[in-house]
Amino acid sequence: MTPPTLPIVRDEHQPALAIAAAGRQLPTPPVWFMRQAGRSLPEYRALRAEHAMLDACFDADLITEITMQPVRRHNVDAAILFSDIVVPLKAIGVDLDIVPGRGPVVAAPVRTRADVDRLRDLEAEDVAPVLEAIGAIRGQLRPDQALIGFAGAPFTLASYLIEGGPSRTYTHTKALMYGDPELWHALLDRLAHISGRYLELQVAAGAQLVQLFDSWAGALNRPDYVDLVQPHSRTALGYATSVPRIHFGVGTGELLEEIGAAGATCVGIDFRVDMRDAVRRVGGTYAVQGNLDPALLFAPWPAIEQRVRAIVDAGRGARGHVFNLGHGVLPETDPDVLTRVVELVHSLEGAA
Amino acid sequence: MTPPTLPIVRDEHQPALAIAAAGRQLPTPPVWFMRQAGRSLPEYRALRAEHAMLDACFDADLITEITMQPVRRHNVDAAILFSDIVVPLKAIGVDLDIVPGRGPVVAAPVRTRADVDRLRDLEAEDVAPVLEAIGAIRGQLRPDQALIGFAGAPFTLASYLIEGGPSRTYTHTKALMYGDPELWHALLDRLAHISGRYLELQVAAGAQLVQLFDSWAGALNRPDYVDLVQPHSRTALGYATSVPRIHFGVGTGELLEEIGAAGATCVGIDFRVDMRDAVRRVGGTYAVQGNLDPALLFAPWPAIEQRVRAIVDAGRGARGHVFNLGHGVLPETDPDVLTRVVELVHSLEGAA
Repeated sequence: MTPPTLPIVRDEHQPALAIAAAGRQLPTPPVWFMRQAGRSLPEYRALRAEHAMLDACFDADLITEITMQPVRRHNVDAAILFSDIVVPLKAIGVDLDIVPGRGPVVAAPVRTRADVDRLRDLEAEDVAPVLEAIGAIRGQLRPDQALIGFAGAPFTLASYLIEGGPSRTYTHTKALMYGDPELWHALLDRLAHISGRYLELQVAAGAQLVQLFDSWAGALNRPDYVDLVQPHSRTALGYATSVPRIHFGVGTGELLEEIGAAGATCVGIDFRVDMRDAVRRVGGTYAVQGNLDPALLFAPWPAIEQRVRAIVDAGRGARGHVFNLGHGVLPETDPDVLTRVVELVHSLEGAA
Repeated sequence: MTPPTLPIVRDEHQPALAIAAAGRQLPTPPVWFMRQAGRSLPEYRALRAEHAMLDACFDADLITEITMQPVRRHNVDAAILFSDIVVPLKAIGVDLDIVPGRGPVVAAPVRTRADVDRLRDLEAEDVAPVLEAIGAIRGQLRPDQALIGFAGAPFTLASYLIEGGPSRTYTHTKALMYGDPELWHALLDRLAHISGRYLELQVAAGAQLVQLFDSWAGALNRPDYVDLVQPHSRTALGYATSVPRIHFGVGTGELLEEIGAAGATCVGIDFRVDMRDAVRRVGGTYAVQGNLDPALLFAPWPAIEQRVRAIVDAGRGARGHVFNLGHGVLPETDPDVLTRVVELVHSLEGAA
């Protein structure tokens, strides 16, 4: 595979996490946690007890507060915007809700050309509270802390729209993908422009890097990912080439090179992949992010410490390393353990 | 990696599927489907409406009938014993049930040395109906059709025992595995001998090959799998070295070599791995099994046919190929499509 030529951002005035994600090795890896703003924090649960998920995602004050909670508590090197990957779909009028204990549920699944044609472009005013919150959050972050914007990748968004909700098997999605490639590509192209535009708006409002979540891309094998998904993720990431771009999916060990080649500067590594293998596969071309097993946070501290050190050591072999979990924080996680992991990572200084 | 020396069975009087799984390339790949005896068949649902799952698993007549249903309907090249991986645990007195819509639920999770010590050896009389059914099934199968015995691998069994039921995160399992390796190894050693003995009994009763299901091994990264799981799967498979041994886990693309090196003759390939990659990685040392995406069976026939042909073509590069899905049959699958896939595979003749 020929490594793609990527515009790698290197700005010494950027926060460390943006520099690392752009492809620069730092003496101490910056650290944040996927789903750091969420149910592991009592202060989050207290707030959410009074507000439905989607209401919170369209309230600038709540977005700001929830985004800042883990930054204050854990001293992580980045805030990630509190939101959900379906927010831009809701914003353009798709009738959906986020049902507690289940996830996003779409009232009318998208399965025809007419359904696709109804998905209109996203405009700044559709997500005004989000963009307002970004400004407020930047005002609260220290200059060395980054704000990460994010969006869902076209495949993962399509899977929710086609299935009508979360799925473990993606039968409707795959039936459409394999059975009507023309309609499939039309749908993913629409979603790519919506996701991409959402990233672009977040960057314009102040996000210093972005992460594209293709949460369920691991349900595909490599040739199908390359033919049917990757071009559209590339379209989406093409909207955010002025900032570093992390690209992550669960269970994507088979797809790491392709996930990088979709236009990322940093490849998010699932916890199932040994970080040394990941660095060998993609660390010469991209920064890597990850990849502590979130379930490991339930083990005694010495077991956690040993693996954090091993991941940091392995990450030093890559073009850049952002320390993170290899999947989102589990709701039952003790937040004090997360804080302790941040302290440990911050104490590990190596040769740059 | 040095390929392990394996006792490869080559007996011309064996059914084709046993020959292929032992590591011999055949002109036409033999075919069966994981979960072929199950909810996709109306005749199965009719029978199960009157019998709880575990009751059926300990009734020789029901085991025989349910095992034979897909063989009669689809003309597959093998029957797989109708059972469940928790059957040997139930048989030695573990208080568990299989709850519809949820899976195996264990009354008292296993988390202490005393819990481990209570797991006694499995004896033939504990699974007498299963062994009786094996004789009856062999009596109904044609000589060219194989009977596959199976067991759950120690890690997957341990995950049910420790969590108390199905899990998506394995937090208790991993906390024990990383936090108390001595107890972990004691538990897995116990389970390895129970699983292994169950395989041995099935072979003695007439099973012509076996499959070890490490369904959830894909939740582990490679170094942890090698240190904490593989030795015990090797112990289990060591009980069945007189027959070909298929070894499979979901989402195990990172672990294919290690799954083979645990003492298998045939590596089951998850649908997420491109079969050409799988053959490149392990096909020189082991036969491969798989790996049509079960969700693809919901697509139009031309899309299915194209991918069946591609998998058969790729499989010809391996030491042997057993055609199968890359995960179990989904309950909503149209059984006529499965029959058509068998007909297609049987029509594809290549150079041996």
